[in-house]
Parts: sequence; C-alpha cells; structure tokens
Amino acid sequence: MVNHLAIVGATGAVGQEVLSLLSQRKTRVGQTSLLASARSVGTELALDGRMIPVRELTDASFEGVDCAIFSAGAERSRRFGPIAASAGALVIDNSSAFRMEPEVPLVVPEINPGDLKNHRGIIANPNCSTIILAVAVWPLHRANRVTRIVVSTYQAASGAGAAAMEELRTQSGEFLGGKPIVPKVFPHPIAFNLFSHNSAIGSDGYNTEERKLIDETRKIFHEPHLPVTATCIRVPVMRAHSESINLTFERPMSPDEAREILRGAPGVEIVDDAAGNRFPMPIEASGRDEVLIGRIRQDASHPDRRGIDLFVSGDQLRKGAALNALQILECLTLDSR
Amino acid sequence: MVNHLAIVGATGAVGQEVLSLLSQRKTRVGQTSLLASARSVGTELALDGRMIPVRELTDASFEGVDCAIFSAGAERSRRFGPIAASAGALVIDNSSAFRMEPEVPLVVPEINPGDLKNHRGIIANPNCSTIILAVAVWPLHRANRVTRIVVSTYQAASGAGAAAMEELRTQSGEFLGGKPIVPKVFPHPIAFNLFSHNSAIGSDGYNTEERKLIDETRKIFHEPHLPVTATCIRVPVMRAHSESINLTFERPMSPDEAREILRGAPGVEIVDDAAGNRFPMPIEASGRDEVLIGRIRQDASHPDRRGIDLFVSGDQLRKGAALNALQILECLTLDSR
Repeated sequence: MVNHLAIVGATGAVGQEVLSLLSQRKTRVGQTSLLASARSVGTELALDGRMIPVRELTDASFEGVDCAIFSAGAERSRRFGPIAASAGALVIDNSSAFRMEPEVPLVVPEINPGDLKNHRGIIANPNCSTIILAVAVWPLHRANRVTRIVVSTYQAASGAGAAAMEELRTQSGEFLGGKPIVPKVFPHPIAFNLFSHNSAIGSDGYNTEERKLIDETRKIFHEPHLPVTATCIRVPVMRAHSESINLTFERPMSPDEAREILRGAPGVEIVDDAAGNRFPMPIEASGRDEVLIGRIRQDASHPDRRGIDLFVSGDQLRKGAALNALQILECLTLDSR
Repeated sequence: MVNHLAIVGATGAVGQEVLSLLSQRKTRVGQTSLLASARSVGTELALDGRMIPVRELTDASFEGVDCAIFSAGAERSRRFGPIAASAGALVIDNSSAFRMEPEVPLVVPEINPGDLKNHRGIIANPNCSTIILAVAVWPLHRANRVTRIVVSTYQAASGAGAAAMEELRTQSGEFLGGKPIVPKVFPHPIAFNLFSHNSAIGSDGYNTEERKLIDETRKIFHEPHLPVTATCIRVPVMRAHSESINLTFERPMSPDEAREILRGAPGVEIVDDAAGNRFPMPIEASGRDEVLIGRIRQDASHPDRRGIDLFVSGDQLRKGAALNALQILECLTLDSR
C-alpha cells in the first residue's frame, strides 16, 4: 500500500477523476494530500466520504510523501516533479514534461509494465490520445507487426481541462440563445464547430498533440521508427476521445482475426454491431475503463488484405489520464508487497 | 437561359439552398416551379423577393419544364426522375438513385464537365462528402497521380436534412437543461456526441456513405480502381462537413508543391496559417462556395516523401449539394447559348 499519496492539481479535471477512482478502486492509501495552486486553498474535496482540504503546492509539500500523482500541467511538473522525487516520492506525471526523456519510463500497464522497473523516481503517463490508440493497436501489433498507422482524432473538450468543458456548455447555450460567442479557453468557438488541435505547429507541419501521438506510441511500443501519421481535431464533445485508425500490417490480417485478437485483449471492449448500427460513441465510453473498439473492417484500398480500419472511443479523463496513472501506481505497489 | 425550372423538394434543406443561390448567382431562369409532398402544399417560399407557392409533386408536374433539380431523396428521384426526363426536362438529381448507373454522368464541374455531354436526360450530383473530397484532391491528382486515399469525415447534421439540424439544436438545449435526450431523426444522441454514419453496413464492413465516397470518387476521376478507404462519422456541427485526408502519390510531393497547385485550383481556398493556428473550420466554411484546405503537410510515415496530409471543410448544403447542381445547370445552359 501507499502510506502517503499526494495529488498535485487535485482541483483539475484529471485530479478530480483520480479522487473518484481512488474511492471506486479501493486503492490502498494511508494518508492523501491534495495540492493545488494558492487560489484553490480553502476548497475541500471528498475522498471516500471524508472532506479533505486543498493545500498550496510548495517546495515543502512532499516531505513524507511516498507517491505523487501530478496533473497540473507541464510547467508545474518541471518545477515540482524533481523536488518531489528528491524528497523520496515516486512521481507519476500526467504532463508532457518528462515523457520523451530516455531515462523516464512512459508506461501503459497493458503494454509495457516491464519498463517501470527502470524508473529513477519519475514515471510518465502518456498523452490521452496516445493511450487510447496504443491500447487498441498493441494487441494487433503483437500478433502481426503493424507497419503503418494513419490516425485522425475526434478529441473532447475535457482534454483541455474543466474550464474548457465549461466553455463548451456556456458557448452552446449562447449559440442556442442567439448570443454572440466570445472564445476564452479555446482560441476558436467550440460550440457546434471543430478545429485543428490548438497546440503549436512544428517546422514539420505537425502540431504538438500529433507529435505526442507519433513519438509516444513509438516509445511505448519500443518501435522507434514505427511509421505513424496523425491529424488531431477538437470536437464539441464533453469528455471521451474518439479515433479513426487505419492500420497496415506486415502480413494479411482479416477482420475476424482482428476481432478474435481484440476479444481477449486487456483494457478494450468490442462494440461492433453492424446490424444494429451500434459502434463506439463518446457518450457510451464516458465513465468506462475500457477503450471501445468497433467498425473493424478490411481496408478496401489494400488489395493484399494487409489493411484494417477501426473506430475507437475512450474516456480521456479515465484511461486517457487518471486510470492509467492509478494502474501504474497499483503495478508498483503490488510488486513491492 | 432556362425557361422553366422545377425544384423538387423545395422545402428541404438543399431545396432552400438552391432557392437562395438562384437569387445570389443571378442564374437566368424564366419560370420556377416549387414542388414538394402534399403536406407542404400551402407553403410559399421566397425567390428574388417574390413569394412562390409550393405545389404537390405529381406525375403531371413536369409538363413544359426544361430542367428539374431533384433534392427529395432517392425514392422520389427513382419514382419521378424518369417521368420528368420523359416529359423533356433535364433532370439534375441530388440523390444517390442514379449516381452509379453507367449511362448517367456524375459530375463535379471543376473536375469532369466533359462527362455532361453524354447525358440521356438525367445527370447525377455526387454525394456531399464526395464532392468536398474530390474538389480538394483532383488538382493534386492531375499533377501527380494519387495512388491511395485514406479519409475520415466529420459530417454535420445538415447532411441528414433540416429536421436533423433542428434535432441537434433541440437535444443540445435538453442536455444543457439536464433533461433526458430522446433521439428521433438520428438513431443516437447527436448533442455533444458523435457516431459512425448511420447508413446500412455492407458485407464488406463499409457503410453506404463510405461506399459512396469510394465509388463516386472513382467514377468522377475516371479511375475505376483508385484505392480509397473511408470512415464516415457524424459530429455535432450544424452545416459544413470536414475531412481528414491522407494521400499517397506516385512520385514525391512536397507541401510547398501541393500548396502551389491548390493555390491556382478552382473551387478551393487555402486556409493554412500555422503561426496563427488558423485552419479550415466548419463555421467558417458555412455559407462559402469554396472548399477550405489546410494543415497541408508531409506525411511523416512515408520516408520517400510520397505522402501528404490535408484537413478540409466545405459547406455541405452549398458546394456539397445545391451549388454543384446549379453549376451543372450553368455549364449546360452556357453551352447551349
């Protein structure tokens, strides 16, 4: 068990989800500290029926802490993550701060739990879109090497935090009421609209979110040269991300074979009812641990049957963030029992 | 000019757009008849400031009509299209009824206007998603043969008609008000959700919408074996469709070359501001004639620079339907002057 767990960014969308999952999963934790910026001090959050006060995140916050789950953005992770690790806390970091550092394991427990043993105090939780892609593709890749991934995302407002979800609500009401829309959290209107993920565009034309999807998938799969291209789009959905995934395999792969492999795979559920026209949808993936997978079909553009198309939805706050972090914690505490 | 134009399905979303474009484009038309089902009789619609009564669509509706634009669904086109053609009217059909018949030209005027001359009384207007894809890809294909297309769509409610747009509004209000959502037009909730296009799934695993995208693009391009795979998704957007398009070319193609080719191409506008993070968005494509194209970049999964990724938005009711039909009409009437 964990004697003293710190949740950094406790008041954010991911932090709240960590709290809710801690109760549901009965993760064995002695003491829990909730840490956030000064403006959240005074807030109390519920954990297992008890109210816990939020304390300010400072250099001194990690004394006696065994494990700290960071979900407060890359800047705070870069500033406070090394301090927490030096104080002896195992850091599980939800931000992008350390993911691509060679000595930091980047882990999806269903895929590469073995990488955890190499940690030096900091473990990185992958980007939400990456986790959802990786959980769906890994079982197939293990059976028949994937030689190319073309992915287009349909990303929910939750990926940009609680304020972005609130903006989607507010703007939608304004639009329906015929009022003018003034974007604040997102740079463009999100209500009844969609747009290219608003992260910085690199010299290669990919935005940071797409780069994460490409580079993190390669690192998690231990396939440093896996050909991946990604297009990341924000859509007016509240909290689960969806992805249209086109896969090329080394050898032919039939939809039945893919279905059979995925049926036995951890962390996924097949929702692929062609007769009833029922496939993965974000409202059904929300609040679920599993990544929903459907529209499993032979890619007609590959005459040699080496292509498979998929459509998936996964809860961005759960498996895409909080759940994966807790699963990492559980892997480590089970090992040390 | 057209002496007598009939608009079949005048009260629908596409019919209304045809009326609005007729005024804006100053298409030279003598008399206009508005036809719809019996329940719309009594309605009057505005054209160029005059109110025109809607009449019931019957077998006798096409006497003296030169041209009939059908936007009333495939069933009505199959029933009344041949009657209109027999009565001497040139039929421009927005439905899927005749698109794949070998003797029916399927035309996007920017691409294959030459096919119009082979008509035998009926000309088919392609599916909205197909037109938007085709207009964006054709100029590149002509310069450097496209050998594979992987496309994922983000389709607006408008594609399912005016009632579907109203359902998106109503459901969004219900969701925001905490009321239960009861889908009527769509089989699944559309507010703050998305789902696989709800057309029938074939034995190959593709739905009808995806089949249209694949088969119609091949017919318009005169490339009967062009490798295309498509995933069609309905999103909670009001009226413009977006598409994430991955292209493979016969020879290397750089983003600059692609941009240069598209800059001079008809029917498209480049919206590709990486520094300002401004790319095609459905709210900006709505009400526009051009298909907006952006996120033009080298596909990193092709080491030999033969891949290009694009993201496009186009007004589904305009270029995706009404505008393309009127452009076909204009091609034919200009020819016969």
